[in-house]
Amino acid sequence: MTEQNLATASAGANGREQLLSAASQLMTELGSIDVSLHQIARRAGLTAPLVKYHFGSKDGLLLALAERDTKKSLEQLEELMAMDLDPATKMRIHIHGIIRTYARYPYLNQLLDLLLWDQESESSRSIRMGFMRPLIEAQRKILEDGIASGQFRKVEPEFLYFLVIGTCLYIFSTRVAVHELFGETRVRKELATKYSAFAADMILRGISA
Amino acid sequence: MTEQNLATASAGANGREQLLSAASQLMTELGSIDVSLHQIARRAGLTAPLVKYHFGSKDGLLLALAERDTKKSLEQLEELMAMDLDPATKMRIHIHGIIRTYARYPYLNQLLDLLLWDQESESSRSIRMGFMRPLIEAQRKILEDGIASGQFRKVEPEFLYFLVIGTCLYIFSTRVAVHELFGETRVRKELATKYSAFAADMILRGISA
Repeated sequence: MTEQNLATASAGANGREQLLSAASQLMTELGSIDVSLHQIARRAGLTAPLVKYHFGSKDGLLLALAERDTKKSLEQLEELMAMDLDPATKMRIHIHGIIRTYARYPYLNQLLDLLLWDQESESSRSIRMGFMRPLIEAQRKILEDGIASGQFRKVEPEFLYFLVIGTCLYIFSTRVAVHELFGETRVRKELATKYSAFAADMILRGISA
Repeated sequence: MTEQNLATASAGANGREQLLSAASQLMTELGSIDVSLHQIARRAGLTAPLVKYHFGSKDGLLLALAERDTKKSLEQLEELMAMDLDPATKMRIHIHGIIRTYARYPYLNQLLDLLLWDQESESSRSIRMGFMRPLIEAQRKILEDGIASGQFRKVEPEFLYFLVIGTCLYIFSTRVAVHELFGETRVRKELATKYSAFAADMILRGISA
């Protein structure tokens, strides 16, 4: 590592943030997580060895990116759970939140899939415990509160989980179908917002008592 | 090609079917479409050059597999469209049909994604025209008939498409979440059937007038 690079690296979290942000931009543009360390470093205006310096390996960078991208959603979910709102409103806000996250990071599902794949790996465990589990538990809690208060009918929380995530996710994972139906490959913010309202409405009608 | 292989190849559609079936088995077992021609040939008890003989290339085999796997669903969809049933019943049967297809070929979405990816390719065009378009059109027709008859409320057919496919698909594309919630990585037939009923019920409640 050159003195120049070390100087950049030692400029604190800066190089790290730059690399994550470059990876995120590239993946969004390409619609794929299949980007090389060289591409990421070049986009960040840094060099590939700096990735190793900050993240240890490409897997380290991918995990850090997944953590960065899910962190805000999880914080918002925790805030939502603590709020004094009825379960239907919480569920609606939760659904909008998931779609907003996928709209912001359209590569996120691919990234999580890759990191989760090897169930024995540290990355997989980290995503399961740090993201998947809290999401499952929060959703289950909202559902159970709604059933208890009589707002929701009794449905299986496990089934609802797959339905909610699938509903929120698919539009962001199929560029070709989006192009076929809307004439563009990207799901723009306006479309995502309209789809959010539709998805939340459909799911709430589905579980209402 | 040896005489032995040519003899097998010339035994009509047999070698072809064997190879498709071997590819399908392997992809189902591995939960991934990432299998080599050698693995496929070995599983079929044939040799890799026979794949070239029957399909031209690996892409040719993958396209033939996607066509084989979607053919029956499409025929059933055409039959459904021609039947004298009310739109809600048609939509319910349609949703069960999609889930049955994914349950039978859990790798199908990955396969279609791969083939669709390069929108300019012949494979992508073939899947779009031969599968995606007919599916979109059938769903739109059922929805419009239901709106016209007063059974359904007015919703955007494009939005409904993403919701229906996502709802049907996700449980088959996330082994880790399935394992987390049900303790197994495979979605067994019994689970798929129960999920079908749930999904159809949720969607019908969502669009009912």
